[in-house]
Amino acid sequence: MNMAEEIKRKTAEIDAIIESFMPEEEDYQATVIDAMKYSIASGGKRIRPLLMSETYKMFGGEGEGVEYFMAAIEMIHTYSLVHDDLPCMDDDEYRRGRKTTHTVYGENMAVLAGDALLNYAAETALGALDSDIDPARIGKAMRVLFNKSGINGMIGGQTADVEAENKEPSEVTEDLIEYIHVNKTAALIEASMMIGGILAGADTIQVNTLERIARNVGIAFQIQDDILDVTGDFKELGKPIGSDERNHKVTYVSLHGLEQSKADVEALSKEATILLHTLEAENPFLEQLLLGMIDRKK
Amino acid sequence: MNMAEEIKRKTAEIDAIIESFMPEEEDYQATVIDAMKYSIASGGKRIRPLLMSETYKMFGGEGEGVEYFMAAIEMIHTYSLVHDDLPCMDDDEYRRGRKTTHTVYGENMAVLAGDALLNYAAETALGALDSDIDPARIGKAMRVLFNKSGINGMIGGQTADVEAENKEPSEVTEDLIEYIHVNKTAALIEASMMIGGILAGADTIQVNTLERIARNVGIAFQIQDDILDVTGDFKELGKPIGSDERNHKVTYVSLHGLEQSKADVEALSKEATILLHTLEAENPFLEQLLLGMIDRKK
Repeated sequence: MNMAEEIKRKTAEIDAIIESFMPEEEDYQATVIDAMKYSIASGGKRIRPLLMSETYKMFGGEGEGVEYFMAAIEMIHTYSLVHDDLPCMDDDEYRRGRKTTHTVYGENMAVLAGDALLNYAAETALGALDSDIDPARIGKAMRVLFNKSGINGMIGGQTADVEAENKEPSEVTEDLIEYIHVNKTAALIEASMMIGGILAGADTIQVNTLERIARNVGIAFQIQDDILDVTGDFKELGKPIGSDERNHKVTYVSLHGLEQSKADVEALSKEATILLHTLEAENPFLEQLLLGMIDRKK
Repeated sequence: MNMAEEIKRKTAEIDAIIESFMPEEEDYQATVIDAMKYSIASGGKRIRPLLMSETYKMFGGEGEGVEYFMAAIEMIHTYSLVHDDLPCMDDDEYRRGRKTTHTVYGENMAVLAGDALLNYAAETALGALDSDIDPARIGKAMRVLFNKSGINGMIGGQTADVEAENKEPSEVTEDLIEYIHVNKTAALIEASMMIGGILAGADTIQVNTLERIARNVGIAFQIQDDILDVTGDFKELGKPIGSDERNHKVTYVSLHGLEQSKADVEALSKEATILLHTLEAENPFLEQLLLGMIDRKK
């Protein structure tokens, strides 16, 4: 299996799936729909829908029912980026080399497009009620989706992150950094794997295991991000090295040191693999994908 | 029946219901939860949950199942106001004599609090799956809720309204004004009555009739708003008269004239009453409430 080729092929399929769920009808609200489509066509890695789809297959899931949720979680991820880029938040003019939504459509339309994507994620996920998936599983999946994306998940992490930026370095504790990693980053990864399992009929214990695997992967991914900011290669990473230190930003690495951080990534990754092997289901591609998210150079 | 007293009593009950659904747990995201609570405790009229609850009772609905959706629709209404007040939107410092959310918590927290309220509306409505209401009805109600609050409902109307403000008066057509009234205002009124009916077991024809009644009431309500801006009494209305004309704002009244506007309100109101009487269910309080929303001096 050539992982890079496989990922490329599957990502293209996911792009097509997401596009197929975007709204067609246009009336006097055409601008907000354009802004939604511009935002979602960002060339992102689609890692959340990919994890969901692979977990779904791992538990024997078949057919198109999962696609409603694959599109929905990418809409939620996208709206969070659109609002995060706003002038009153991170004030970013570019993302992945492309102008941000408010830069192209104005701030008011970017606020509305973000709102519209979150709202449309709910509409899209509810569309799964028209598929052949058991409605009880859809209800459970909806609850996981909006729990992990809300105040006890992504929005919670986002809030803590925004506030941490205005804190003195001494106030940014290990506990706070962990809260941000778990909620801002890991929560939607957890939702992706849990929903894949739930829709395919995984039982409660299995879904809990998926949650722990995804949490480990999400946290390790973030620590690796901090490590690469110190040790990375400018050419591979495509962004300046050492920016966290120059910005006096408290990171996992500045709190725990480089060696400990590397050891923690290793331990989290190993635990994730062991947990994955406790499941009675198997998906070698998913295992490679999870390890690749952690053990990366960029 | 003393309508004013009844409305006051029922509104107090709804305030308590909404409060009971607001999140308790606080961690590093405490600020966004505070901002959500501040926003929802705005002293609004709670007209949407009231209409939902009364329609639910009209069709024989009993018990607390409807309360999840009563809270959810008020959260959606509230988030739309929080984002609408932002500097990049209407830039309002006060609403109902109280400082707006961004004025108190900052723009970034107001964006997050709005997002959090919309997301929490989904979580709250999904909580109805724990009640004794048939899950199939809950699925239908969720679909109506997010359809009417999204790009083919409230957000659509909001988008058209934002864009209309930058248009030449000659570009603001009757069709556009109707689109804004139907979507920005009527859509959530429609959702309120439809969901009340759906959760209580109203059939498709009855739900369609509820939608038409609510649409008439919503449109008439907005036209009455435009009429009062011309003919209202400053003391009763509590805001300056004639502001639309001074702002060269195109309104229903400026397009159709005062007499025609009054006649249209009368006709919409009459049709709503006739439609209400075609339903086999009855709720005299609801009828008075709907008429009172239209035939008002403030």
